[in-house]
Amino acid sequence: MKIAIYGYGNLGKGVECATKYHKDAELVGVFTRREPSTVKTVLDTPVFSVDKLLDFKDKIDVLIICGGSATDLPEMTPSLAKDFSVLDSFDTHAKIPEHFERVDKAAREGGNIALISGGWDPGLFSIARLYASSVLPEGADYTFWGRGVSQGHSDAIRRIDGVLDARQYTVPVPEAIESVRGGDTPSLTTREKHKRECYVAIADGADKARIEKEIKTMPNYFADYDTTVTFVSAEELRMAHSGLPHGGSVIRNGKTGKDGENTHTVEFSLRLDSNPEFTASVLVAYARAIYKMKARGEVGCKTVFDVAPCDLSPLSPEELRKKML
Amino acid sequence: MKIAIYGYGNLGKGVECATKYHKDAELVGVFTRREPSTVKTVLDTPVFSVDKLLDFKDKIDVLIICGGSATDLPEMTPSLAKDFSVLDSFDTHAKIPEHFERVDKAAREGGNIALISGGWDPGLFSIARLYASSVLPEGADYTFWGRGVSQGHSDAIRRIDGVLDARQYTVPVPEAIESVRGGDTPSLTTREKHKRECYVAIADGADKARIEKEIKTMPNYFADYDTTVTFVSAEELRMAHSGLPHGGSVIRNGKTGKDGENTHTVEFSLRLDSNPEFTASVLVAYARAIYKMKARGEVGCKTVFDVAPCDLSPLSPEELRKKML
Repeated sequence: MKIAIYGYGNLGKGVECATKYHKDAELVGVFTRREPSTVKTVLDTPVFSVDKLLDFKDKIDVLIICGGSATDLPEMTPSLAKDFSVLDSFDTHAKIPEHFERVDKAAREGGNIALISGGWDPGLFSIARLYASSVLPEGADYTFWGRGVSQGHSDAIRRIDGVLDARQYTVPVPEAIESVRGGDTPSLTTREKHKRECYVAIADGADKARIEKEIKTMPNYFADYDTTVTFVSAEELRMAHSGLPHGGSVIRNGKTGKDGENTHTVEFSLRLDSNPEFTASVLVAYARAIYKMKARGEVGCKTVFDVAPCDLSPLSPEELRKKML
Repeated sequence: MKIAIYGYGNLGKGVECATKYHKDAELVGVFTRREPSTVKTVLDTPVFSVDKLLDFKDKIDVLIICGGSATDLPEMTPSLAKDFSVLDSFDTHAKIPEHFERVDKAAREGGNIALISGGWDPGLFSIARLYASSVLPEGADYTFWGRGVSQGHSDAIRRIDGVLDARQYTVPVPEAIESVRGGDTPSLTTREKHKRECYVAIADGADKARIEKEIKTMPNYFADYDTTVTFVSAEELRMAHSGLPHGGSVIRNGKTGKDGENTHTVEFSLRLDSNPEFTASVLVAYARAIYKMKARGEVGCKTVFDVAPCDLSPLSPEELRKKML
C-alpha cells in the first residue's frame, strides 16, 4: 500500500519512521504547508508542497493526516476525504460525533474511506473499554493516563510570564490504580486519580512564588489536581526531559455469577517511550485496514470500533488462525 | 436475541448466569445429553433433551455449545452448525485450522454463521496478540498464564495411584514477567516462564515420596517445570481450593524510531475469580456479534479476529462514538 503523510511535525516524523517497520507500507512522500525545501525529513523522504497533492491522486492509497485536533483536523480531514482515503488521530473526545458526520459525508461524496480518531486514546484504549464493557456489562471502568508528558499542559505553563520552558507529566495516583487493580470499584475524584508534576525553567530574576501559584491555581489545567512544581535550569530541562513518553491503563472490574459473587479485572496498559511514534504506528496499522476495506468496496467514515482485528494484520486469515489464535 | 445452551457443565452454568447481566439475551433453555429431570439449573432455566433440539430450530437465534475440546466440540460444532448459528470455545490451538474448515463447510451448507474458539485464550488474548503485533511489527510477545487452576493438570495428578483429589495452579515466574514488563525481550524456556503448584489429598497410608516423584517427573505435564507438591487433607482441598480462578497477561515489547531507539510495552491482562464464568461472558458477547452479523447476511465460520469490536456491544454505533471512543 502506498502511503503519504500530510503535515510534518512529531506525528508525521513518527509515521515516516513507522513505515520502516511496516514492510507492506511504501512511503510516497511528505506533504507540507511550508516551503518544501525548508523541511528536512528523518529518512530523506521526498517533501512536496500541499499544493501538489492532487497531482498524486492516483499514486496514494492512504493519506495519513498528521495535524492538530484543535484547528487543523476539523478542516483538513473532511476536505481531503473528498479526494483521498484518509486517516487522522482526532482526539477531542467531545467533538468526535460532529467530526465523524462531516468526514463521513465528504468520504461518501468522493467514494473514499476514512478513519478518524486512530491512535491510543482515542484508539486502542477505546477498544479496550468496548471489549471489557461488552463482556462484563455489570462493572465499572477506569482510565489512568501516564506517567507521561502532556503537551497541552506544558504549553499552558510556557504561557506564564517569566517561564522560559516547561514540561508537565501526568501521573496516576498509585493508591487509586492499586485499589482498582485489586478489584475495587471506587468513586474517584479528578484529584484522586491523577497528579501533575511540572518541571519549569524560568528567566533570571523571575518570581518563583508567583509562577508556582499561577500554575497551581490555573483553572481546568491544574486547579483540580495535586500539582508539584520543580524549578530546573533550561539546560537540565533539555537534558533530562527531552523525550515524549506516555502510557496508561484502562481497567474494568466486573461481576459474574448467580449473585455477582465473582469479580474479574480486565486491564489494557501501555508504556510508551515515544507517544508520537507509537501513535504513528497505530495509524499505519489502521492505514492497512482501511486499504483492505476500501478494496472490498467499503466507503464512508469508520472508527477503530468498525475495524475487525484481522484487517490490521499483514497476515492472511489462514495464517492468523494458525499462528495467532 | 434468543440463546440456548448445549451442554451443562461449569461453562454451561456460566453462560446461564451471564444472561442475567447481558440484558439483551433471552435464555430459551438448556439442552443436555443427560435425562433432563436429573439436571437442576442454577436459575431454574428449563432443561430439554438434546433429542428435542430440532423442535426449537425457529426459536433459537444462537446456540452456545458448552462441550469439551478433546472429543465433544470436534463433532458437535460442525454437526449443529448445519441447523443453528453456533458458538464454541474450542481451545486446542493446533487443531483450530482443521476445526475451522469443518465448521465453515457445515455452516455454509445450512446458511448459518458460526464462531469457534471464543473465550480468553484462544479469544481475548489472541486479539491482544494480533493488535500489538500489527501495531509494532518489530518486537516479541509473551503470554503468561495464571495464577490459575489448570483442570488438565489437576486431572493428571488425580490419576496417580493413592491420590484422592488434587488441584494444580499454574503460576508465572515473577522474575520473567517483571523482565518482560520492563521492556526486555528475553528468550525464556518453559521452566523460566511458569511454575506449577500442586495441592494433593492422598489416601491414608499412601506413599508421599512416590506420589511427589510421580508428579514431578510426569512428562509434558510437570517434568519441564519447577513443581512444588503440598499434601493437604481432602477437607482443606475442598475449603481452600474450591474455586476456579485464572488469568494471565499478553505482553509485547516493540521498537520504533529511526534506529529502533524507542521501546513500547503493550500489555493485556486478566485476573479472573472464575475462569468458566468469564469465558461464558465472552461467549455471550460474541453471541451478540454473530447474531448481528447473521442479520446482515453473513454466513460461514468466523473467529474473534473477524468480528469488529462494535458488534460486541449492545450500544449503537452513534452511542459508541459518543460515549466510548
